[in-house]
Amino acid sequence: MDEFGLIARYFAPLAEAPGALGLKDDAAFIPARPGFDLVVTTDQIAEGTDFFPGDPAEDVGRKALRVNLSDLAAKGATPFGYLMTLTLPRADQDWLESFVKGLAEDQKIYGLSLLGGDTGKGPLTIAITAFGHVREGRMVRRGTAKAGEAVYVTGMIGDSGGGLAVSENAGAGLSEIDRAYLIDAYRLPKPPVEFGIRLSSFAVAAVDISDGLIADLGHIAETSGLAIEVAAELIPRSPALRGLWGEGPDAVIRAATAGDDYQIAFTADRARENEIQAAAQQAHVIVTRIGIVTAGKGVRLLYRGEELAVPEAGYQHF
Amino acid sequence: MDEFGLIARYFAPLAEAPGALGLKDDAAFIPARPGFDLVVTTDQIAEGTDFFPGDPAEDVGRKALRVNLSDLAAKGATPFGYLMTLTLPRADQDWLESFVKGLAEDQKIYGLSLLGGDTGKGPLTIAITAFGHVREGRMVRRGTAKAGEAVYVTGMIGDSGGGLAVSENAGAGLSEIDRAYLIDAYRLPKPPVEFGIRLSSFAVAAVDISDGLIADLGHIAETSGLAIEVAAELIPRSPALRGLWGEGPDAVIRAATAGDDYQIAFTADRARENEIQAAAQQAHVIVTRIGIVTAGKGVRLLYRGEELAVPEAGYQHF
Repeated sequence: MDEFGLIARYFAPLAEAPGALGLKDDAAFIPARPGFDLVVTTDQIAEGTDFFPGDPAEDVGRKALRVNLSDLAAKGATPFGYLMTLTLPRADQDWLESFVKGLAEDQKIYGLSLLGGDTGKGPLTIAITAFGHVREGRMVRRGTAKAGEAVYVTGMIGDSGGGLAVSENAGAGLSEIDRAYLIDAYRLPKPPVEFGIRLSSFAVAAVDISDGLIADLGHIAETSGLAIEVAAELIPRSPALRGLWGEGPDAVIRAATAGDDYQIAFTADRARENEIQAAAQQAHVIVTRIGIVTAGKGVRLLYRGEELAVPEAGYQHF
Repeated sequence: MDEFGLIARYFAPLAEAPGALGLKDDAAFIPARPGFDLVVTTDQIAEGTDFFPGDPAEDVGRKALRVNLSDLAAKGATPFGYLMTLTLPRADQDWLESFVKGLAEDQKIYGLSLLGGDTGKGPLTIAITAFGHVREGRMVRRGTAKAGEAVYVTGMIGDSGGGLAVSENAGAGLSEIDRAYLIDAYRLPKPPVEFGIRLSSFAVAAVDISDGLIADLGHIAETSGLAIEVAAELIPRSPALRGLWGEGPDAVIRAATAGDDYQIAFTADRARENEIQAAAQQAHVIVTRIGIVTAGKGVRLLYRGEELAVPEAGYQHF
């Protein structure tokens, strides 16, 4: 099957937006939307690095999309559409059908359309560029935190890292339910897209947690020229993850440096806490206050008032 | 060097647009521009497929950008910015410096800014998503040609294919100047961006020539539900290419199926010909009328009035 056959059969049905032109053109167009900026983000995932060979194709497509929706959510944007560049070792029809089915389901859940893309031959890699709308000038940034603000995080931290460990044969003593919960967290991130849409009304600075909670809070701290202090005991961890890695400072550090959470960390005036919790409830998301923005530099992790040494975080490519 | 080091050193200086936020955020934003749609296109190039190992890094970056600018030009859009996903086997500083230098030069020539991207480890691949503005509803499409319109093409056809052949040791009898001219056409496409900006005022349908003139005219014909008839003698070929592949129908077919031209083929009312030639002159581009849109199906190539058999065109990935 040539590239045009692949597009017509598998990808054209995903191109629901009028500007996608059924993937029959050189380019797509995104209609003018007066009063809104377009937020643009891009992330790729690769077999062997971000998912395992043999992971369900349906989950692989959704993960590729969701790691990008996570960025849109952290910037306060409403998803609109995406481009996909797919590199495939071969055109396996069963795999492609399942891959596309996963994307179609996520398009419905998150309300977006494929707009275009490119297909090539090579090691399995999925690069997605996602687009979302945010009111003019209202994209939530990293570098805008102010001293005295509270630091919040959505969802649970460390589950994806726990799922990766379980996939690599840790956690023999866990129940099947806990193992499945953690593996699912690794395979299929659940970015708080609905909460993200409300984010710009109260968040002052925000980041999506992909490198690890500490590393990503470090990005807010660095670009804001301030420090962030986190109470380690407050970092939300699931019962399954507590079962896998236990309690105590080492377990918390592991969760806070594992990465791939695709949750949102943000800063806000503490006086807005009721409004934040109301938004969280409406979006069916848990939001936990874990720290504070202060003068200084870097991220300090305190456990029962004592500072923990945090290892160098973040994934090193080269 | 980690990913953040790479970004800060090599890529942040390319992020000139305010919405790029110095590449220090999760995402970029493209400001609202009332009355304009955003045209979006994406294309990747890979070592061994689209360029040779050892090709100058400066040209590789520019080629990656220009194959996308070609799509914008064919849609009548004014370039605004781009995202780049770079996969590198290793972080070679000399290579990266030269690569970035090429991009910086093209940013100046074409008036655009890097907006964001992603870097990973793997076989050398550069995927670019480019953005441009076009007046609301005025993107020039493929499927809108009408019977009776004339078919035009910018620039010379086949030079890139000739350059590829010379790179693979054809053309021993050519002069050094002709060899260099053809190799340069392969390495560094020259999409008619300035002409593209004027395109929407007269073109009815358009496509960029990447798969080959015949194949890409086939896209216009198919999506418009019409046929296109091309006079083979009128297809513009450079003196260097004539020197390499000679004259006669076989030489023309070779040029018209070689691909990677990154010129524009478009249809327009013949009554607009003076306006078209004036725009071409202002943009320092040659525009040649080569055929006509008719009822029917497919692309017919006529040589001195007789129809030529054209081999199946277009690159097959799988």
